[in-house]
Amino acid sequence: MSIFRVDLKKVVDDSYDIVVDFGLQDKLVEDLENGLLGNVKKLAIITDSIVNDLYAKPISEKLINAGFSVDIFVFPEGEKSKTRETKAMIEDQMLSKGYRRDCAIIAVGGGVVTDLAGFLAGTYGRGVPFINYATTLLAAADASVGGKTAVDTPLATNLIGLFNQPRKVYLDIMTWNTLSNRQIIDGLAETIKHACIADASFFDYLEDNIDKILSLDKECCMHIARENVRIKYNVVMKDELESGLREVLNLGHTVGRAIETASEYRLMHGEAVSIGLVAEVNLAYDLGLINEEEKDRVIALLNKTGLPVAIPDYIDRDYLVKKLYTDKKVRNGKLRFVLQNGIGSVKEFSENVYAVEIEEERVRKIIMAM
Amino acid sequence: MSIFRVDLKKVVDDSYDIVVDFGLQDKLVEDLENGLLGNVKKLAIITDSIVNDLYAKPISEKLINAGFSVDIFVFPEGEKSKTRETKAMIEDQMLSKGYRRDCAIIAVGGGVVTDLAGFLAGTYGRGVPFINYATTLLAAADASVGGKTAVDTPLATNLIGLFNQPRKVYLDIMTWNTLSNRQIIDGLAETIKHACIADASFFDYLEDNIDKILSLDKECCMHIARENVRIKYNVVMKDELESGLREVLNLGHTVGRAIETASEYRLMHGEAVSIGLVAEVNLAYDLGLINEEEKDRVIALLNKTGLPVAIPDYIDRDYLVKKLYTDKKVRNGKLRFVLQNGIGSVKEFSENVYAVEIEEERVRKIIMAM
Repeated sequence: MSIFRVDLKKVVDDSYDIVVDFGLQDKLVEDLENGLLGNVKKLAIITDSIVNDLYAKPISEKLINAGFSVDIFVFPEGEKSKTRETKAMIEDQMLSKGYRRDCAIIAVGGGVVTDLAGFLAGTYGRGVPFINYATTLLAAADASVGGKTAVDTPLATNLIGLFNQPRKVYLDIMTWNTLSNRQIIDGLAETIKHACIADASFFDYLEDNIDKILSLDKECCMHIARENVRIKYNVVMKDELESGLREVLNLGHTVGRAIETASEYRLMHGEAVSIGLVAEVNLAYDLGLINEEEKDRVIALLNKTGLPVAIPDYIDRDYLVKKLYTDKKVRNGKLRFVLQNGIGSVKEFSENVYAVEIEEERVRKIIMAM
Repeated sequence: MSIFRVDLKKVVDDSYDIVVDFGLQDKLVEDLENGLLGNVKKLAIITDSIVNDLYAKPISEKLINAGFSVDIFVFPEGEKSKTRETKAMIEDQMLSKGYRRDCAIIAVGGGVVTDLAGFLAGTYGRGVPFINYATTLLAAADASVGGKTAVDTPLATNLIGLFNQPRKVYLDIMTWNTLSNRQIIDGLAETIKHACIADASFFDYLEDNIDKILSLDKECCMHIARENVRIKYNVVMKDELESGLREVLNLGHTVGRAIETASEYRLMHGEAVSIGLVAEVNLAYDLGLINEEEKDRVIALLNKTGLPVAIPDYIDRDYLVKKLYTDKKVRNGKLRFVLQNGIGSVKEFSENVYAVEIEEERVRKIIMAM
C-alpha cells in the first residue's frame, strides 16, 4: 500500500468591505476603475425583471462609459425564480456570449438576485469574483452580507448552494425609495430579528422609531442599515461557515422557512420569518427562556411594523410540521431550534451550540395555537 | 458613507491522503469506522450504472454491516450523464431521503462519477465532505486527484464546477481488471501526458513497458498509479486553484477537449486528449520548442499504446477550430496553449505563466494537416 499526503494548508483571505450610503452607483464604477477586481474588464450584471430598468441599466451604462465590457442577464422577479433552472439559463447565456474565467459578476437586486448570482459566480469556471449591489432593505439586512448563496428546489429552500464571499458589497439606501410598502415592511423582519438576537437597545430604537423608519426617514434608514451590518458581520466573522455561532441568525427561520415554502411563496421571506419569530418566541416562552412581557413586546413590534404574526388559514398545519424537517439544522432526524434568551440575546445551550433539539409535539402545539 | 470591513482571513487545511493498492474496500470501511469523517453516520454513495453492481453495492453492504446508514444513487454510465440535470436529479433524491448537512458522499467510479459527485458534495447543504473511490485508470491518473470537479453543459465541458478537495482518495488498482481494453488504453493518455510535462525517465519507462502495462502487470500498474499521483499532486500542491503552474496539466486539453465535444463523446476523454497531445506537440515543434525526434517519440508512444493520433474524418475542422474558443484558458478572446519544451518539461513563458497566446491561423494549419 502506498500513501501520498497532498498538503493543502493555506491562508485564505476572503475579507471585504461593505459600503452603506445614499446613491452608490458612481462609487461602484470608481472602485472598479481603481482596480477593485484587478484586470477584469468583462462584467456580467445579473438582475431581475424589475430592478433591470431601475438600476441595472443605469449602472451598465456607466460601466460601459468607463470602458468595461458589460452584458445584463435578466430573470423574472420573485423567489420562484431562485432555482437551478434559472442558474443554468444564465450560465448558458453567459457561455454563449463568450464569458470565461476572466470575467466577474455584479449582482444588482434584492436577496433573490444576490443569492442566485453569488452561487452562480462560485461555480462559473470553478469560481469568478462577484460584487453585490443591494437594492432592497431585505438584501441590506440579510442576503447580501455574509456569503451564503443558494437556490431553492422543490423539496427545500436554500439547500443547494455555497459559502461564497463577495469582493465588495454596496448597500444603496436610495434604492429603498423604489420599494413598495410591502417590501419595506418585509425587509424589517430580519432587522427585528437582528435586534432580538443581539441588541436590546437596538430593539428599543426600533420600538421608538418604527413610524419614521416606515416613512423612510433618511437618518433612520442609515442607522438601521448600519446596525444590521454591524450585528450580522460580527456573527459572520466569528463563524463564517456556520459551525456554531452563526446558527443564531436562524432565529425565526426554522418555522419561517417552512411557512414560506408551505405558502408557495404567497408570503414574502420577511413575512414568513415574522410568523416564524412569533412561533419561536412562543417556544422560548414555553421553555421559560423569555418572560411574558418580553414575548409580547416582540410580537407587538412585528405587529406595529405591519408584519403578519399569525399563520394564514390557508396553510395546512400538519403539512407545515412535516416541512420543518427540511430545515438544514435537522440532525439525526430531530428538529433543532435557535431560541431567544430574553430580548437581545440567544441561548447558548452548551459551548458554541446555539440550536437545541425540541420534541415535535411541543412545536406542534404552538403551531396549532397560532 | 459608512464602510465596514468584514475580516475573513483564515487558515484552511484541505490536506488529504491518497491511498494506492490492490483492493481497498476494507481499508475504506476501516478508515470510516476510525473516524475519518468524524461523527458522520449517513453516507450517500454516488455511482454509475456499470460500477454499481461491481463495486458500489459490495462497498455499501460492508458499510451497512459496520453500522452506517447508506443509500446508493445511480445514474446512467458515460460522459453524457455529467450534466446539471443529473446533479439535480441526485440532489432531489437525496433531499427526499432526508439527507441534510450531517451526511457525506462517497464517489465510487471513474472520472465522470468523481467529477459529478465532488461538485454535488460541494453545493449540497452548502458543502458536505466527500471521498473518492476511483475504479478506473483514468480516474486514478487524473480525475480523482486534485479537487477539480465539474459538469458539462451543451456549450462547454467542465466549465460549471468547483475546486473542492476530497477528504481521502482510494485508488484501487484491482478494479482495473474489470475495465475494457478500450478503457485501459483511454486511461493511459493522461499517464503519457504526465510523463510529457514532468518526467523524461517516466516517459522512457512507459516506452519500455507499454506491453506489460496493457496486460495489467501488477508491478507496472502500481508503478504508473504512483507516478501519476506523484506528478499530479506535486503540481496541485503548488497551485491548487490553477492561477499559474497548474495550467501545465492542460497539455493536450485545449485541442483535446474541443475534439471530445465535437465528436459528441464518440471519443472517450483520453482518446481525445491523445489527439490533442499530437496536435499540441506539432505546435511545439512548429514553434521550435521540441525537436523532430522527440515529437515523433511522443506520437509513437501514443500510437503504440493504441490511442488515436489523428483527427477522425467525421469531425468538421472549422467547427473544431471554433470549439477551441470554449476553452477556459481563453483570455480576451485569444487562444492560449500549454506547450512541451522537449520531453518531460513544459515551457515557462514568463514567471509562473505556462500558457501562451497562439494565433488561430497557426493552430488551424496544424489541425488541417491532421
